[in-house]
Amino acid sequence: MKLVGISGALRKASTNTGLLRAVRDLLPDGSTIDIITLHGIPLFDEDVIEASGKPAIVADIAERIRAADGVIIATPEYQFSVPGVLKNAHDWLSTMKAPFKWKRTGVIGASAGAMAGTARAQYHLRQNLQALQAIVMPRPEVLIVHNELKFDADGNLTDEETRQRLATWLAAFLEWVEKKP
Amino acid sequence: MKLVGISGALRKASTNTGLLRAVRDLLPDGSTIDIITLHGIPLFDEDVIEASGKPAIVADIAERIRAADGVIIATPEYQFSVPGVLKNAHDWLSTMKAPFKWKRTGVIGASAGAMAGTARAQYHLRQNLQALQAIVMPRPEVLIVHNELKFDADGNLTDEETRQRLATWLAAFLEWVEKKP
Amino acid sequence: MKLVGISGALRKASTNTGLLRAVRDLLPDGSTIDIITLHGIPLFDEDVIEASGKPAIVADIAERIRAADGVIIATPEYQFSVPGVLKNAHDWLSTMKAPFKWKRTGVIGASAGAMAGTARAQYHLRQNLQALQAIVMPRPEVLIVHNELKFDADGNLTDEETRQRLATWLAAFLEWVEKKP
Amino acid sequence: MKLVGISGALRKASTNTGLLRAVRDLLPDGSTIDIITLHGIPLFDEDVIEASGKPAIVADIAERIRAADGVIIATPEYQFSVPGVLKNAHDWLSTMKAPFKWKRTGVIGASAGAMAGTARAQYHLRQNLQALQAIVMPRPEVLIVHNELKFDADGNLTDEETRQRLATWLAAFLEWVEKKP
Repeated sequence: MKLVGISGALRKASTNTGLLRAVRDLLPDGSTIDIITLHGIPLFDEDVIEASGKPAIVADIAERIRAADGVIIATPEYQFSVPGVLKNAHDWLSTMKAPFKWKRTGVIGASAGAMAGTARAQYHLRQNLQALQAIVMPRPEVLIVHNELKFDADGNLTDEETRQRLATWLAAFLEWVEKKP
Repeated sequence: MKLVGISGALRKASTNTGLLRAVRDLLPDGSTIDIITLHGIPLFDEDVIEASGKPAIVADIAERIRAADGVIIATPEYQFSVPGVLKNAHDWLSTMKAPFKWKRTGVIGASAGAMAGTARAQYHLRQNLQALQAIVMPRPEVLIVHNELKFDADGNLTDEETRQRLATWLAAFLEWVEKKP
Repeated sequence: MKLVGISGALRKASTNTGLLRAVRDLLPDGSTIDIITLHGIPLFDEDVIEASGKPAIVADIAERIRAADGVIIATPEYQFSVPGVLKNAHDWLSTMKAPFKWKRTGVIGASAGAMAGTARAQYHLRQNLQALQAIVMPRPEVLIVHNELKFDADGNLTDEETRQRLATWLAAFLEWVEKKP
Repeated sequence: MKLVGISGALRKASTNTGLLRAVRDLLPDGSTIDIITLHGIPLFDEDVIEASGKPAIVADIAERIRAADGVIIATPEYQFSVPGVLKNAHDWLSTMKAPFKWKRTGVIGASAGAMAGTARAQYHLRQNLQALQAIVMPRPEVLIVHNELKFDADGNLTDEETRQRLATWLAAFLEWVEKKP
């Protein structure tokens, strides 16, 4: 199975990018995940499209999504929603030929502190993904609180209980992608 | 009264920027609106902050918001939410000293076609503004559908009925800012 | 194909119940829709469950949903969300053995006036349905404004253009149910 | 200061009703809270209004809200949103003469387990309250997880750290009501 993972954060030591690496480590043999960070995508501006067309990087990401069996998005939560960086990528992707259409998709996230564990971001993200026509797994969910205690300084997952829950989620997601209920 | 207007779209001929110009034309004598577009703000990236600090443009916008009596945000709707461009600006502003804290704020928007008139974007925006601690006027609302019929090619409002509704909204908003109920 | 239709409104002349009757008239031969209104469901109260168990009417609705190939929910919008009546039914249904799990589901709605056409209600409803693990068709959508002009006094759909759009939506929904993308 | 507290749950031992009792214990001398549970409100049905008018209990609650300096709503989370019981009360209250208009309001909540602590319910509730024109305190927030560990079997708050956080929240809320920023 070929998956794409998209991180909503740019920071090199992002725990959400780290979460996607943890997914990679948990994948069964024969499955792969192509992890994408959103560096280098310009701010969405229709005047720029008119002047110089759509950026090659967006076409490239759209193509990788289209070729995947499933997509996992790991999002931090900023201001009770997704990062502008992630939303901006979706704004660009919506101008491509529907890369997310009926694509089996999963949403996960990790945030600092005790509050909500990206729940607020994940529901905004799910609404964006509805617009893009993805088919997002409803449950189970991964809402990680206190990422400051569960990842190291490089953003690598170190907490064993969290890894177990991620493994449970991943098993459900792989079934979601494969069996297409 | 000193207002700030923020447009969620970068396009020069944006109808949402045009909506803020229409607000300017409707303001009573002695009131002003400083219209801000979000060009030139980089994608939010904590590694960039660490390497080179926060961009001067964000500090400038924060200062103008702080100095205003009230703020009006005009937002288009992309993928059933606010543009990434607008969200990205809020991500940056959240790192400044709470420019929106208890700031009297209003939300308006215009979109193409018959569907929802930016309703979906406005409720996501309201949730972002809660995080930023703004005090957003609950009602009335301005949800403009079919902006392709109500603005000219340069994004200027031409529809008289829409202007009347905007004037009604603006009167309520000015009272909201002044009387602080 | 066997469908269940659930109306979010109790009023006999509800345009949302009427919308489900319009769906029935549009169904191809061999397909049926069992239209359910939510009269007689008590307010959800765990003390009542403890004292006298779950109401038979809820078990009956759960069974009809479980037996269906797909479910269509037609919702009005009250206070920028779904009616309490509809949410209360979902609260009860969540105590049954997951009748909505992986059930192919569609959401439509009609409201009075020019504003948003139940958009706000539909996104809250979609979040409820995620909790219930339904697989909800992302697009197209049916957001009917000005139902006062498009239905008669008994809640029957009379507007031909709306019927066409509903037919387009229904064709997409039947494919959604049958092909399970 | 005269407050009204509304509990979103009917269960006698509800931890959310218990949260309002904990607020009562924390109030300074001279301040009171009138705690309302929503028993006995019928399902909202316009046919019933036409046949027999609006229920006296709803008029009574509307009057108590109107007379209060501020309102606190404590909500559980069911199916990623507010209980139907609470939404149903708002549907009725919206037919009264705007009891929530510009009313200073606060939102709190407690839920079982580790997930989100009613965050999802609180944002739906905030959108309902916008429709009702309440002025809801943006921050701080009270999102209590693991209520099974923090309340006794009768729904009384027993966790000292939670009580401290509630006290901090209440101090902010009383200032919000009194100073009307």
